[in-house]
Amino acid sequence: MLETEFDIIHHYFTRQPCRRDDVLTGIGDDAAVLKVPPERELVVCMDTLIEGVHFPMGTPAAAVGHKALAVNLSDLAAMGAEPSWATLSLTLPEPDSTWLEDFAKGFFALASRHGMQLIGGDTTHGPLAVTVQAHGYVPPGQALMRAGAKPGDRIYVTGTLGDAALALRLPGNAQADLRRRLEYPEPRLDAGILLRGLASAAIDISDGLLADLDHLLETKGLGASLKIEELPLSAAFSAAWPRFAKQGATYYEIPLSGGDDYELCFTVPERHSAEVERQLGSLSCGCTRIGLIEERPGIRCLLRDGGSYQPAATGYRHFDG
Amino acid sequence: MLETEFDIIHHYFTRQPCRRDDVLTGIGDDAAVLKVPPERELVVCMDTLIEGVHFPMGTPAAAVGHKALAVNLSDLAAMGAEPSWATLSLTLPEPDSTWLEDFAKGFFALASRHGMQLIGGDTTHGPLAVTVQAHGYVPPGQALMRAGAKPGDRIYVTGTLGDAALALRLPGNAQADLRRRLEYPEPRLDAGILLRGLASAAIDISDGLLADLDHLLETKGLGASLKIEELPLSAAFSAAWPRFAKQGATYYEIPLSGGDDYELCFTVPERHSAEVERQLGSLSCGCTRIGLIEERPGIRCLLRDGGSYQPAATGYRHFDG
Repeated sequence: MLETEFDIIHHYFTRQPCRRDDVLTGIGDDAAVLKVPPERELVVCMDTLIEGVHFPMGTPAAAVGHKALAVNLSDLAAMGAEPSWATLSLTLPEPDSTWLEDFAKGFFALASRHGMQLIGGDTTHGPLAVTVQAHGYVPPGQALMRAGAKPGDRIYVTGTLGDAALALRLPGNAQADLRRRLEYPEPRLDAGILLRGLASAAIDISDGLLADLDHLLETKGLGASLKIEELPLSAAFSAAWPRFAKQGATYYEIPLSGGDDYELCFTVPERHSAEVERQLGSLSCGCTRIGLIEERPGIRCLLRDGGSYQPAATGYRHFDG
Repeated sequence: MLETEFDIIHHYFTRQPCRRDDVLTGIGDDAAVLKVPPERELVVCMDTLIEGVHFPMGTPAAAVGHKALAVNLSDLAAMGAEPSWATLSLTLPEPDSTWLEDFAKGFFALASRHGMQLIGGDTTHGPLAVTVQAHGYVPPGQALMRAGAKPGDRIYVTGTLGDAALALRLPGNAQADLRRRLEYPEPRLDAGILLRGLASAAIDISDGLLADLDHLLETKGLGASLKIEELPLSAAFSAAWPRFAKQGATYYEIPLSGGDDYELCFTVPERHSAEVERQLGSLSCGCTRIGLIEERPGIRCLLRDGGSYQPAATGYRHFDG
């Protein structure tokens, strides 16, 4: 059954659960009209997911809908922002009612949990791709930036690392816990908001801890030491690991460089570290101290016995072959 | 030569001409941070262009960059908004320095003419597609909406109709004037701003006059009569027409239903029509009165001799085969 662009928009994307007062005109005109409160700064990000590049062929539609929004919410989380609105550009090989309904369910379930309203977008015909732009608010001057880390600051991450990347490398066989981390990443918005005024810098981990931590260092030419045995790993990761180890990988390769974690990596001056540990300790994701910002450039991976660990790869780069 | 995502962003998209005071943090963090003036409402739209669907294979990169932004600016124009920022998601089969440089030139030439700053986006690997989100401002309550037309209002369009659609149908042979209208559409932002407080409804013509005029009518179940011999046609259109007429098309088919015009279609209460004609007459695009809003549903195409014209098609729909 063929449907027109207009039908698609009406059927699946206008019956949404969340209606916000700051949306004066939503879907249905040439553009949305919005009212930003005068005491708030607007935070805006955009991410695209392509089938076969950012998610495997055959990923359930609900997971695609969830993840396309989640990766953007993860960027808002890394800014300490509170989500408000989203726009969605959906490119589809052919309109498929079941797929669209599931996609919309995954998208709106996450959106409404965070009080977001879909305010516009576009549907086009082509290879499956999803672009989402997310908008959020921060109080003036309180956005968390990448560039604020100083030597002596402690380095933390939320949640656990490597689960999603390991699920991707064990296709069809990954445990449900790992698979859920790949398909339904949970943006750490509560953590980001609690970190306002406490963290000196923050980023979300999409390309892998080493690659993303490097973004916190590069502006000022700083370095870091990581205690890699302190990296937070889930029970599901440790249980599934032996099957992947047969491929010759080392234990810390995936948590350091696998990517797709959508956890926050952030730095905290010593004077705020007890407060951060207390505040984030109250969240289900928690946080773990994994290292220290240093003057000397480069990232050093240290072992408890005083030795050092040499990572095999440093992160996912879209165009590196 | 392969380049990383980061290199692409840095080389081509951070050397932009326009820097705005309302951009607190632009490209380079997890998200942009922006300050909307308290006395302005924010207007937001998003459009995606796919190679082979929205522009022909082999379209010059500068034209792709221009058009991806222009179709969004055309939506802002239809709201009466003044442009402020853009985000860009660019999906490329492979990074090509020359293509990227030309794309960026086309994009930024248009952006800077309208005082817009690129504040973020994403580059991904896949079939060529470009998604742009444009942001703009309107004074409170002054956005032009689709739903405000009333019986008795006059219907106007800016510029001329059918040029781009005729260029598309004469591939390789279109005159430079027609081709320019297809590849470098000029968003009617000045017209939109002048229409604030004067027009009762407005939309931009992307899918064809009949399809887009229908959006102005559908909310309230109104109708319209069009004097089709009054439709503004360019000299280039009339000169090229005989070559296309051989395919059996009728003269008004393309101006009525071809699409890709990116002119504004708007309605004006009788008491404002002299003022609108005076104001828009001062712009290079001008405006032409083409019909009347009526109570009776449906669009009637009238001829001067009292007869009526039956359109062959009513507009472009992405999924209609």
